[in-house]
Amino acid sequence: MCQLLGMNCNTPTDIMFSFTGFATRAEEHKDGFGVAFFEGRGVRCFVDHRSARESPLAEMVKRYPIKSDNVIAHIRKATQGRVALENCHPFVRELWGRYWVFAHNGDLKHFAPRLHAAFRTVGDTDSERAFCWLMQEMSKAHASVPSVDELSATLAELVPQVAAHGTFNFMLSNGVALWAHCSTHLHCVLRQHPFATARLHDEDLSVDFAQLTTPSDRAAIVVTEPLTTDEPWIAFAPGEMKVFVHGRLHEPATEHTHFSC
Amino acid sequence: MCQLLGMNCNTPTDIMFSFTGFATRAEEHKDGFGVAFFEGRGVRCFVDHRSARESPLAEMVKRYPIKSDNVIAHIRKATQGRVALENCHPFVRELWGRYWVFAHNGDLKHFAPRLHAAFRTVGDTDSERAFCWLMQEMSKAHASVPSVDELSATLAELVPQVAAHGTFNFMLSNGVALWAHCSTHLHCVLRQHPFATARLHDEDLSVDFAQLTTPSDRAAIVVTEPLTTDEPWIAFAPGEMKVFVHGRLHEPATEHTHFSC
Repeated sequence: MCQLLGMNCNTPTDIMFSFTGFATRAEEHKDGFGVAFFEGRGVRCFVDHRSARESPLAEMVKRYPIKSDNVIAHIRKATQGRVALENCHPFVRELWGRYWVFAHNGDLKHFAPRLHAAFRTVGDTDSERAFCWLMQEMSKAHASVPSVDELSATLAELVPQVAAHGTFNFMLSNGVALWAHCSTHLHCVLRQHPFATARLHDEDLSVDFAQLTTPSDRAAIVVTEPLTTDEPWIAFAPGEMKVFVHGRLHEPATEHTHFSC
Repeated sequence: MCQLLGMNCNTPTDIMFSFTGFATRAEEHKDGFGVAFFEGRGVRCFVDHRSARESPLAEMVKRYPIKSDNVIAHIRKATQGRVALENCHPFVRELWGRYWVFAHNGDLKHFAPRLHAAFRTVGDTDSERAFCWLMQEMSKAHASVPSVDELSATLAELVPQVAAHGTFNFMLSNGVALWAHCSTHLHCVLRQHPFATARLHDEDLSVDFAQLTTPSDRAAIVVTEPLTTDEPWIAFAPGEMKVFVHGRLHEPATEHTHFSC
């Protein structure tokens, strides 16, 4: 199985602290890593088929403060698909003049939908197949970029059809919103004023967010297993999808729900 | 105007030497840079809206020997489109289950084709528009991955329609072949046995390729202006397109032409 890390912010933020803790887990998840950073509409996606513990690319991500409003990272333990660059997550496609980034944790059995439209797999993972199918069905459901609520409604119809084939923890972003779906393991935390100190679970490293932020900054962090020992991580329920926009949980315009992340 | 650098090899080769010389030219071309490396079907594309002279990403590319069989690099001097990540070349799209990478040097005037199919621009450059149009028309011309010869024939029909709008020096690769088209400035050199020493034009740096290669290695380098002072660079003719496969000029199967690069 792989592990996922996502960040959605209201102001461009670097992910060096969280990624450092996340990359430590690459000892077990050694078959490649990847991280995609949105900056406005643009995206940079770094992938390597080497472990995030030893890749010079991962080293650069830990040291170079790339400020981004939406980040998706992945460390891979190969279950389906060879250890090859084209099988590294995140995957990127363009739809409606926007880039879409996707990473998946889990196994899908017998998921072989017909990819008859504009999205084909380059590698041979179930994950890329699921992404291409989501893109294909999204492109059929909307003629141009839908609102976050509209797309969330579409995904709520599509995702269970994939999840029926196995474990489908995934993150998806278009640079505006971060959709995170949990089959088995996913946790989130909201970092906002008043900021406190956080200590990594996997490494002897702490950070005092109060010194790095302004009171209006907000960041939502989503990850397979909690990264820190002293933050109020919330576990997703199986089958739950959360959407984050501007560093907080997005509440559908038509409903009145309580803030729950 | 921007500058382009491409490499096509018969064995995965790093581009550190050539990129170092190329990046030196970023003093004038300071509005971003990008470099895409194919490894088999996979691709990694590094882009930065900062100059290749000062970007930590460019520094990594100069020092980290990423071995690739097809590389396209670009340094940008903005003429159309803001200085933003989404306007940095190379651009990447997927078609027929392959990634396609494109970079352009030149200005296109009044080129506003209808993008009615699966390829839309994310940024606001004429270059990305040209790439999306080429992808769209290629996808209409072939149902699945065509041969290099077939695609070259298609491009030979499409490219003049774009080039009629201005300067259209470009490079395109799918990880197998490198297509390079010249409107104004493009040069190539073939590095093969017997290898010699080459000295960069822009920096006091030499390399003895004989010490780094085996006799069967071959690499074709294509660039806006010659990178070295002591290699037999060949200038493209205006309107000429060359195709490189396995580190040498690709000769159409049905014709008998002389090796000319």
